[in-house]
Amino acid sequence: MKYQLSVRRTRQIVHRTFAASAKKSKCILPKFKRKEQPKMASTTLRGKPFDRQVLDSMLRRRMFYTPAFEIYNGVGGLYDYGPPGCALQANIVDQWRKHFVLEEDMLEVDCTSLTPEEVLKTSGHVEKFADWMCKDPKNGEIIRADHYVEEILEARIKGDKEARGLEVNLNADSSKKKKKIKSTGTVKLEDATVAEYEGILAKIDNFDGPELGKLIIKYDMKNPVTGVLPSEPTAFNLMFQTSIGPSSNAPGYLRPETAQGQFINFAKLLEYNQQQMPFASASVGKSYRNEISPRSGLLRVREFLMAEIEHFVDPDGGKKHSRFNEVKDVELILLNRHTQLAGQTKIEKMTIGEAVANGTVANETLGYFLARIHLFLKKIGVDLSKLRFRQHMANEMAHYACDCWDAELLTSYGWIECVGCADRSAYDLTVHARKTGAPLVVRERLAEPITIEEWQIEIDKKKFGPKFKKDGKRIEAAIESLSQDKLAKLAIDLASNGKIVIEVEAQDLDRVELSKDLISIERRKRVENTREYTPNVIEPSFGIGRILYALLEHNYWSRGNEGGDEARHVLSFPPIIAPTKVLIVPLSSHLSFKPLVQQISSKLRELGVTSRVDDSSASIGKRYSRNDELGTPMGITIDFQSVKDQTFTLRDRDSTKQVRADKEAILLAVKALVEGSKNWSDIEKELPSFEGQDIDSINT
Amino acid sequence: MKYQLSVRRTRQIVHRTFAASAKKSKCILPKFKRKEQPKMASTTLRGKPFDRQVLDSMLRRRMFYTPAFEIYNGVGGLYDYGPPGCALQANIVDQWRKHFVLEEDMLEVDCTSLTPEEVLKTSGHVEKFADWMCKDPKNGEIIRADHYVEEILEARIKGDKEARGLEVNLNADSSKKKKKIKSTGTVKLEDATVAEYEGILAKIDNFDGPELGKLIIKYDMKNPVTGVLPSEPTAFNLMFQTSIGPSSNAPGYLRPETAQGQFINFAKLLEYNQQQMPFASASVGKSYRNEISPRSGLLRVREFLMAEIEHFVDPDGGKKHSRFNEVKDVELILLNRHTQLAGQTKIEKMTIGEAVANGTVANETLGYFLARIHLFLKKIGVDLSKLRFRQHMANEMAHYACDCWDAELLTSYGWIECVGCADRSAYDLTVHARKTGAPLVVRERLAEPITIEEWQIEIDKKKFGPKFKKDGKRIEAAIESLSQDKLAKLAIDLASNGKIVIEVEAQDLDRVELSKDLISIERRKRVENTREYTPNVIEPSFGIGRILYALLEHNYWSRGNEGGDEARHVLSFPPIIAPTKVLIVPLSSHLSFKPLVQQISSKLRELGVTSRVDDSSASIGKRYSRNDELGTPMGITIDFQSVKDQTFTLRDRDSTKQVRADKEAILLAVKALVEGSKNWSDIEKELPSFEGQDIDSINT
Repeated sequence: MKYQLSVRRTRQIVHRTFAASAKKSKCILPKFKRKEQPKMASTTLRGKPFDRQVLDSMLRRRMFYTPAFEIYNGVGGLYDYGPPGCALQANIVDQWRKHFVLEEDMLEVDCTSLTPEEVLKTSGHVEKFADWMCKDPKNGEIIRADHYVEEILEARIKGDKEARGLEVNLNADSSKKKKKIKSTGTVKLEDATVAEYEGILAKIDNFDGPELGKLIIKYDMKNPVTGVLPSEPTAFNLMFQTSIGPSSNAPGYLRPETAQGQFINFAKLLEYNQQQMPFASASVGKSYRNEISPRSGLLRVREFLMAEIEHFVDPDGGKKHSRFNEVKDVELILLNRHTQLAGQTKIEKMTIGEAVANGTVANETLGYFLARIHLFLKKIGVDLSKLRFRQHMANEMAHYACDCWDAELLTSYGWIECVGCADRSAYDLTVHARKTGAPLVVRERLAEPITIEEWQIEIDKKKFGPKFKKDGKRIEAAIESLSQDKLAKLAIDLASNGKIVIEVEAQDLDRVELSKDLISIERRKRVENTREYTPNVIEPSFGIGRILYALLEHNYWSRGNEGGDEARHVLSFPPIIAPTKVLIVPLSSHLSFKPLVQQISSKLRELGVTSRVDDSSASIGKRYSRNDELGTPMGITIDFQSVKDQTFTLRDRDSTKQVRADKEAILLAVKALVEGSKNWSDIEKELPSFEGQDIDSINT
Repeated sequence: MKYQLSVRRTRQIVHRTFAASAKKSKCILPKFKRKEQPKMASTTLRGKPFDRQVLDSMLRRRMFYTPAFEIYNGVGGLYDYGPPGCALQANIVDQWRKHFVLEEDMLEVDCTSLTPEEVLKTSGHVEKFADWMCKDPKNGEIIRADHYVEEILEARIKGDKEARGLEVNLNADSSKKKKKIKSTGTVKLEDATVAEYEGILAKIDNFDGPELGKLIIKYDMKNPVTGVLPSEPTAFNLMFQTSIGPSSNAPGYLRPETAQGQFINFAKLLEYNQQQMPFASASVGKSYRNEISPRSGLLRVREFLMAEIEHFVDPDGGKKHSRFNEVKDVELILLNRHTQLAGQTKIEKMTIGEAVANGTVANETLGYFLARIHLFLKKIGVDLSKLRFRQHMANEMAHYACDCWDAELLTSYGWIECVGCADRSAYDLTVHARKTGAPLVVRERLAEPITIEEWQIEIDKKKFGPKFKKDGKRIEAAIESLSQDKLAKLAIDLASNGKIVIEVEAQDLDRVELSKDLISIERRKRVENTREYTPNVIEPSFGIGRILYALLEHNYWSRGNEGGDEARHVLSFPPIIAPTKVLIVPLSSHLSFKPLVQQISSKLRELGVTSRVDDSSASIGKRYSRNDELGTPMGITIDFQSVKDQTFTLRDRDSTKQVRADKEAILLAVKALVEGSKNWSDIEKELPSFEGQDIDSINT
């Protein structure tokens, strides 16, 4: 069980992206620094106190999302998107495609989720993609071991603080986690014990299963619910297993990431790209992880949409990027690994040009993608004051990665990893090539042939075969795998002794003597016309559901209790990602409005602008409130004046201000706002404002 | 095992869409009529002979699709889409969304694939979603029972025909199916035996597993490969099973269709739609079916993209549709059930208006969707001479469906069901509501309250409870479920005898006597203000992968060996679904072309038109050939003239004709062609043609 030395670390090797929950990124920071984390998440877009329950209930009421199978009491970690959530998701993906795939001619592929076991054995997932879990022997509850230890110790520290009369200052999401754990009561601990507990909590991510098991016994961590110790932690693989085909001997899994399909198709993609390097493939699709006990709403789910890019690059030449210049002045908020290792959370603001130049970010290609990720998140409406790029520390990264940064978004759950961007070196292509024999390499014609001087071996096949018979091949393979240094030494041996001894991995045969008549080793020159290499991979990997959730929190605010009304919620999405762009509101269900509604609505369709008509009997104010909650940025009102003179009012969601103009002008304004070529203040300057009708309170 | 009386029929109950392969729809037609099927599939778009292998090899070379995990020797029924296939799929889905979802304000949802067992037990899938399979006891091969019987009998008939010196006239795809079955040799059969075999083949879809097993024994159908009889057929459920969460007691499946998620969310969707009826939900997503032995390339796969609409409609009032008038003149090719039952394949061409009026199609709503499906398929480039709507015969339909039509597309595999359109009545909402108690109903306020006169029961609870104790509830339930007719009779009994006898399903108690003092039955009036009903569902269900494959066959042709060149393949996709709209081709890699390439390419991006640059060193002709294979409808060539005067040539893929004009005119032409507002002959009339440079043969 050597591979499970550290559950978090081993899981990270393969579970590169979104392994980190709010929790992990938090725990990696030394405990005592936690309270320094800015509490920005607890304010809305307009700086008022944020109440997650209020937003959550609004999002469910408006069917942004809903627990899946709720009429069957639901299943943890499974959510359905309703119409606005589904449209929001589609718009985010659409912008992602435009921003990444189309902008850079990436090769998008759609690979299957069903994956045969062998592929995921090679990638390491079958062996290592696991968390540690315990079982409570009394009530059968299954518990994630690291969460359990953390919760028990935090509860004890809390009890101690209460006993000492100190303020209890736990992190934002602890209340949620503590749900199942009864308070351990007000019990004062020894000072040394508190220090011990805090030490364990600070490095909770570094314990493996057996170590967690020892801690549970050492500190007698009985389950407060049942009063007994949980079982020894065992590894639980996080992939959903199934069987492909009618026979039971073809085990398969649902993919835990979309990346493997891209690696496996590398040779075909290179061929499709007419052998030109560098290039990127991309994929948008569902992935699946069988979380032990999913919580945190949309942030930790069992089925989720990912968008992944695999950018294949020549490892030689410093991984430059031809378009780096276009982004070099983009300023990023960086939290580098040295700062974190020093126990600090101090962020730095610098251009990506500086960051690559001073070595903070490993290379131009990685830097290019960090900047492009920043620009993408900005475009779709992320609050930039709640975005940071956090570098993985050495022990967090997979052993083959050279550098890895997470784009983290601040939410009420803490800082959430929403995009991972790793330089994965040549690991994946290498393991799949080794396993299958497929040439997952680039062969490049050299501009000028190069001459290589090296030790070369020649074997006298006529004598060699008869002498070694069935072992011949293995001995040859052993000889071929010898390094140049070793060959240099063997050449001397052979010259002086007339024979050499080779170590061979073969049955009944591990040291073989070869005499001068069988083998010769000489220094010769060789001309190479092509160069063969395994590309390195830079992988930006997006958790669409997490980004979507962060966008909901970042764009939410409330008009508050002004004028004695109830709080009215607003989602201030930018038009490009808003589920619906325009709400069309006839003043009433009066027949004279119908043709105008149809006209406006078909004109908008021609412009490619999604709209919805609300001709329900609710007041105009109520109808607009509903659509503020849905994040619809514009509203067109049709009133009796419209019937007379074909003018309409256009309402801005965020300011509730209105302008009035003829159809053409209104439609042009809508188009400009949707495309982002103008904003509302431009429109207000161009078109006469309209105050005649207070649509936010009018009743019809 | 009563429910498995007919495997095909039981499977159809739940496996409504795409259960039918090429095979099924073929087999349903009486055997002797098969050769009457038009062989149109074997010609290309330009009427030349069609060779599937040639197209297949081109599609793989251009990476439209590729067997998944090919470097691991692949997995049957799993395919990945490469860049052009992925873009084609995305464009089809995009057009689908525009044509259906946006056009009619459908409520799109995105539900999970992972589904707990209970849900699929209710829907009937756990029990009935199965095929019959046998195992060969010698080599362990697993065989689909109905396919096996069919193949053996067809091989014997073939052998008989050879023996009689007759022409062997088997259907198009039999060669593929026959692969594993060795010829049974040239053996002449009795005339009566031939007739018997043909009788069995004609009704192969009507045998269940035990019946197939009897046939195998009766006709001694030894496996020609092993020489032994296969095992008794057993039912094999076609869903992929897995386990959700860490405990083993939460079995789940991958959904076999997207429909269930929509039904389960019905109450929330109705609420989202502000209680307004009718409305439709829609969903695009992967579904999974563990086929026993998938063949037929992209047509029968284990993981596939579906797009499903569930249109909820009031069952009262004849299922009218408010927009039926807009489509009533659309002409469809119909193959109705009466024609099929009479053993004929004669198609009728009629408007959907006529078809609904004369009762061929059950109702307006169903008719509306058939016409809309026709218009959609036309828009995306289906060859309308290879489209028909085939009505399900009574024994093909699920027992609750009132009418069902498949849009079938003719391919080299035969007529393929690509869209199913069924009137599913209230089945799904009813079973889920019954199981969960959730109110999956519509409550409608009546315009005028209605007064109902009916028999009403009153129970004297004070006496009733103490008398019947724990059985009280069951007796009350039995009383409440009595029909009005029954109550009328009981009222007379009670009046004349002073007592009645009720049948109750309860332990030790099946007939209960109730006397006058316990119960009264009287005719009274009741005023109803609301009406409650379970909506019916019209379900258009699209197999995107099947449509995509049919589009490939329908749009494929070859320029042939004209002028001694090799055959040059063309995919004549309409611009709206073409993976790439414009190929930008600089004459050579000369530096002076680069700024122009960038200009054109960024202008196209602004217009939202996808383009690709091919500045490889291949000849312009070769570069265009490659893109003809990719189906790119337009090409813009940049030559030395362009550098001088900023004019460019625009090439039409299908005619290879060119026009030359300045940038603005060329871009306008491209936009018009992509939007479909103009076609190539319009452009040729507007812009000067260009003959100066034979780009299809020029070498640079």
